[in-house]
Amino acid sequence: MNQPFFSPRGVVVIGASRDPEKLGYGIARNLVQGGYPGAVHFVNRKGGRLLGRPIYTEVAQVPDPADLAVILIPAPYVPAALEACGERGIRAVIVASGGFRETGPQGAALEAQLVEIARRYGMRMIGPNCIGLLDTHLPLDTTFLPPPGPLAGEIAFLSHSGAICAAITDWAYGQGLGFSRLVSLGNQADVTETDMLSSVADDPHTRVLTFYMEGVSDGRRFVEQARRVVSRKPVVALKVGRYESGQKAAASHTGALAGSEVAFDAAFRRAGVLRAETAEQMFIWGRALAWSPPLQGKRIAVLTNAGGPGVTAADALEANGLQMASLSPQTAETLRSFLPPAANIHNPVDMLASASPEDYARGLRALLADPGVDGVMLILPPPPMFSAGAVAKATIPLIQTAEKPVVVALMGERLIPEAVQHYRSARVPEYRFPEQAAEALAALYRYGEMREESAAREIHPPDVDKEKAASLLADSAPGSWLSPSETAALLGAYGIRTPFGEIAHSPQEAASLAEQIGFPVALKIVSPDVPHKSDAGGLLLGVASPEDAARGYRRILERVSQAVPGAALEGVLVQPMIGDGQEVIAGVVRDPQFGPLVMFGSGGVEVEGLKDVSFALAPLTEPDLEHLLASTWAGRKLAGFRSIPPADRGAVRDVLVRLAQLAADHPQIAEIEINPLRVLLPGQGAAALDVRVKTAEM
Amino acid sequence: MNQPFFSPRGVVVIGASRDPEKLGYGIARNLVQGGYPGAVHFVNRKGGRLLGRPIYTEVAQVPDPADLAVILIPAPYVPAALEACGERGIRAVIVASGGFRETGPQGAALEAQLVEIARRYGMRMIGPNCIGLLDTHLPLDTTFLPPPGPLAGEIAFLSHSGAICAAITDWAYGQGLGFSRLVSLGNQADVTETDMLSSVADDPHTRVLTFYMEGVSDGRRFVEQARRVVSRKPVVALKVGRYESGQKAAASHTGALAGSEVAFDAAFRRAGVLRAETAEQMFIWGRALAWSPPLQGKRIAVLTNAGGPGVTAADALEANGLQMASLSPQTAETLRSFLPPAANIHNPVDMLASASPEDYARGLRALLADPGVDGVMLILPPPPMFSAGAVAKATIPLIQTAEKPVVVALMGERLIPEAVQHYRSARVPEYRFPEQAAEALAALYRYGEMREESAAREIHPPDVDKEKAASLLADSAPGSWLSPSETAALLGAYGIRTPFGEIAHSPQEAASLAEQIGFPVALKIVSPDVPHKSDAGGLLLGVASPEDAARGYRRILERVSQAVPGAALEGVLVQPMIGDGQEVIAGVVRDPQFGPLVMFGSGGVEVEGLKDVSFALAPLTEPDLEHLLASTWAGRKLAGFRSIPPADRGAVRDVLVRLAQLAADHPQIAEIEINPLRVLLPGQGAAALDVRVKTAEM
Repeated sequence: MNQPFFSPRGVVVIGASRDPEKLGYGIARNLVQGGYPGAVHFVNRKGGRLLGRPIYTEVAQVPDPADLAVILIPAPYVPAALEACGERGIRAVIVASGGFRETGPQGAALEAQLVEIARRYGMRMIGPNCIGLLDTHLPLDTTFLPPPGPLAGEIAFLSHSGAICAAITDWAYGQGLGFSRLVSLGNQADVTETDMLSSVADDPHTRVLTFYMEGVSDGRRFVEQARRVVSRKPVVALKVGRYESGQKAAASHTGALAGSEVAFDAAFRRAGVLRAETAEQMFIWGRALAWSPPLQGKRIAVLTNAGGPGVTAADALEANGLQMASLSPQTAETLRSFLPPAANIHNPVDMLASASPEDYARGLRALLADPGVDGVMLILPPPPMFSAGAVAKATIPLIQTAEKPVVVALMGERLIPEAVQHYRSARVPEYRFPEQAAEALAALYRYGEMREESAAREIHPPDVDKEKAASLLADSAPGSWLSPSETAALLGAYGIRTPFGEIAHSPQEAASLAEQIGFPVALKIVSPDVPHKSDAGGLLLGVASPEDAARGYRRILERVSQAVPGAALEGVLVQPMIGDGQEVIAGVVRDPQFGPLVMFGSGGVEVEGLKDVSFALAPLTEPDLEHLLASTWAGRKLAGFRSIPPADRGAVRDVLVRLAQLAADHPQIAEIEINPLRVLLPGQGAAALDVRVKTAEM
Repeated sequence: MNQPFFSPRGVVVIGASRDPEKLGYGIARNLVQGGYPGAVHFVNRKGGRLLGRPIYTEVAQVPDPADLAVILIPAPYVPAALEACGERGIRAVIVASGGFRETGPQGAALEAQLVEIARRYGMRMIGPNCIGLLDTHLPLDTTFLPPPGPLAGEIAFLSHSGAICAAITDWAYGQGLGFSRLVSLGNQADVTETDMLSSVADDPHTRVLTFYMEGVSDGRRFVEQARRVVSRKPVVALKVGRYESGQKAAASHTGALAGSEVAFDAAFRRAGVLRAETAEQMFIWGRALAWSPPLQGKRIAVLTNAGGPGVTAADALEANGLQMASLSPQTAETLRSFLPPAANIHNPVDMLASASPEDYARGLRALLADPGVDGVMLILPPPPMFSAGAVAKATIPLIQTAEKPVVVALMGERLIPEAVQHYRSARVPEYRFPEQAAEALAALYRYGEMREESAAREIHPPDVDKEKAASLLADSAPGSWLSPSETAALLGAYGIRTPFGEIAHSPQEAASLAEQIGFPVALKIVSPDVPHKSDAGGLLLGVASPEDAARGYRRILERVSQAVPGAALEGVLVQPMIGDGQEVIAGVVRDPQFGPLVMFGSGGVEVEGLKDVSFALAPLTEPDLEHLLASTWAGRKLAGFRSIPPADRGAVRDVLVRLAQLAADHPQIAEIEINPLRVLLPGQGAAALDVRVKTAEM
């Protein structure tokens, strides 16, 4: 966006009010008293003066400069005001007024009118139904939130909810958390979260973006924009509405297990967006992401003056996927040199209650110097003999110059305010509990990981016949299941092996089919009445010649009719011999927001119960592939486990990549499910034993 | 304990110091200035006066009344001081001094000396290495924590860590959280957490017990005491040290999957103790448990003035296992009668930003009156036009008289302090975020559930032959695996069916074994070289007569020698025919703290990878049994799933109860693992197809 939402030379408040109880007064007040350095103009059809300025009765009267308008008047009057802005040459508008789509069809029609007007004049519009935006560094405050405004800081906050925006702003004040920019997005009739994400990321004062999300306007575009942002700055999102979507009826296991939430998870993973579970967590992470150097590894040292907090910290670090560092002998020696004999010089380092500010500084220096330590958690139950503030002063210079992150757990309330202030002013992330400090370190680590992973390119498999697949799909009916032969041909066009075999209805046919397929083959009775083929003598393996195939056909019919008298026998299936192997499920579905999603995991009929599955966006990247395999037992087991021999992991990767490409290339495909995909011994490939393909509804 | 730890008539401080920098001064100060109504005496070999009182140089000189002593002198002098207390007739002692077991073997020896002295005089001792105890209602403060002491309240806090006790006390002040009693347990040389739990529970001012735990001194006794407490008052525990224990090498899957943490989970479940994940969570729960009426069901209504917080609340409630209530038509009508048309009168009820304090009160009254609502979350992003304090005043009378719990999410910081104060004074649980409020409601619900479940009796199965099992075990070597026949006999003595069968080495033997077992039987080749018995012709099912068994023996040998030339053939296994069924795992292990634990879940070789298992203490209760079955896919699947037919759930319950009793009755059993237990169709039972029993080391 080139519109000057964050760099206006002049702001017009349409609906500025002289009544201090009105929100239209609040906007005027915040602009003027908030220190905005540009021109501020007021418009209200009543006229008069406000805060030492004239109130114009028409937008047309407003003098230059005027390039951003904030509208807060009753909904029915907004279209005319917007039109007037267009005429006046204003290209950026915030519509704060409510009474649009959120109130029903009539409001929605009014909102559509706004969009039409904005498009006609080449204007961009934030809102309607929002509380505007705020930049603490310019400064610029177009909201009506009660003063003082938020502290200046390095965290940007975007929100689909105005109430959350207001509540978080107020709450953050007490946390000593400053913001760079705040944006309340409202109904997003024009400007969406995706537009705003990139705009805000360009702000040099913003070091981390946080985002309260209720949905997404264009899934794939969001992923692309967010990926670009993440390459430069961390993005943390709290996505709510998990339980609103519910589960839809689905034809396949893949469809039943997919849904809006797994799609968001997959999208955030691809984009490198950190997904927070609560608003509090978003800012526990945000504080560290804004202020700390990267955490290059998982090995954390804990420095404390008491046992209990050290144990708590160790638990919390491990629970957050980090590790307790093993300290080097040199570090242990350094610690021993100044600590009492009863101190614990191993991680967690417990310096005992007698630890002085100097001890904290010496201990911290030793831990930061240890090459086996990637980051440090400094825990400070106030030492009984010293002030916590003195410990803060002694440690801040070390933390500020360290290339490794140090986070602080400052435990308590009345004994720590001085220390809290020192650390906050020095931009050192401090928390009340070791558990929060551990979460913060984990966020630093995961940002490093996700930033790298999100830079990966999509994998496009070679030797796919896109045209053949397209023509096969063109011939199929919308919203239907493909036949076995169409399915085999479709998957075959993308290089996925589907040894379904064919049904013989006579000994001669069995022999000739076997010859076509290639020896050895397996022969299997086809009968709805014989569930256990093997027990009934309905199975022959390793059939090696046309003659044996013909003989086998006869023998199977004979044995089965004996074993299950009266069973309906539909023929004998002639299949290529597939060796033993591990069986997994692989599928794709199409998410309405994010498009094709790949699923992988433990298959069989129990897939929905075991839920050992994982999802990724199609086409896949290398980290997506590794995630699918590493996050499921089905994937980990491919390496072999106890008496289970290893299987061809490379073949699974290949099938997943091809399946993903097939779905990405052909929007006519609604769902594909391979269940099972039999994975043979390493080097022997994988075979899609049962596949269902559903085409999209028109 | 009859010792007067919480009701002393006189307290002696041994090591009272005149130096305000010393901790021995802090104890004297807190006792005198804290308002303790009994006598306070000081002892210090230096003599002199302190806080208007004489300092005696010997304990023997202290006048009556004196029934509690607090000792804070260097460790080497503690035994003599303790001895002097015993001579003086003091029966309750707190040893605050450090320098004992926590410092190494020498300290441990000194600690053992203390225990010996205490036993000799019939004294009970808290500590050493603790910060003492505190009762805000008596009041009594034997700690050296800096004043003012904690607020008086209804929450008791026990802690294995003194530093955590100090930090939590300080932190809680800022949260407006009051305590009834605080106990720092230290090294627990004599008085343990289990002793203290019951003592503190008897305090009429205490409405909920919270507990920072680093371990347990006697697991089964703890469970018994905690169960009794839970029947009257909720207990919340934060158990740390999760990652210290690590995984031990284990012979069975059950052993590999068990460990200290699952044992604590099982013990807490049996006792009805709520297990918190973090200290913060313990008090989020504690506040609601102390102040709210019981939550009788899961159906929660949300009342708010904005959309975003309502969505967040709905997510959080569902994530915490609660449900969004469906409001009755009457409730909807009442809400519609006073709310604007654009308000949402369905749950979450969004009254819009214009909602007044009266609207909040009317809305709350309507929701509380709805029979489909079990509890309410009231969310208060401060309404722009009204003060949050006014909303608090309008709603408090309703909340205080309601029989259903109401928790409040008061979002923000600068706009809410008045409301916070009102709610806290009125003992209404208030939180900053809907997520925390949802956690609080969930804790209320779970306490109700766990209280009921923990009252359940242990199930003792009929028809077990304890003597027979004992004599079988008496004959077995310690630390060894039982033979198949011993195993079958042991399980048989407890009524668990183990159709292992027996190996025939001739056609005649096959016939006679088949006759013993009863027809029909299955015949299976026994050979290490024939993994796929069926493919090689090594399997015969449904053998119905002695003649067929002898013929079958010959036929199997013949077919297998043809199919796998040169295979070593060890005989033919004659087994009773076991029908098809679901296969699960059932096992027991012995935990060093809590004794026998039962495991149930998905079996096979993949059990350690799938981790679909659950644990409970043996013997089992009805809620334990239901937990084992409901918390695992293996258990849920017994009801049938898609093409999987239902299985004999009752038989699984029976096997679990019998297995649990077997392990509970015989400490010589270290581990039993049934893998698989095949569960037949409903009414047809379950069979332990493969069982391993290991005896305990001596």
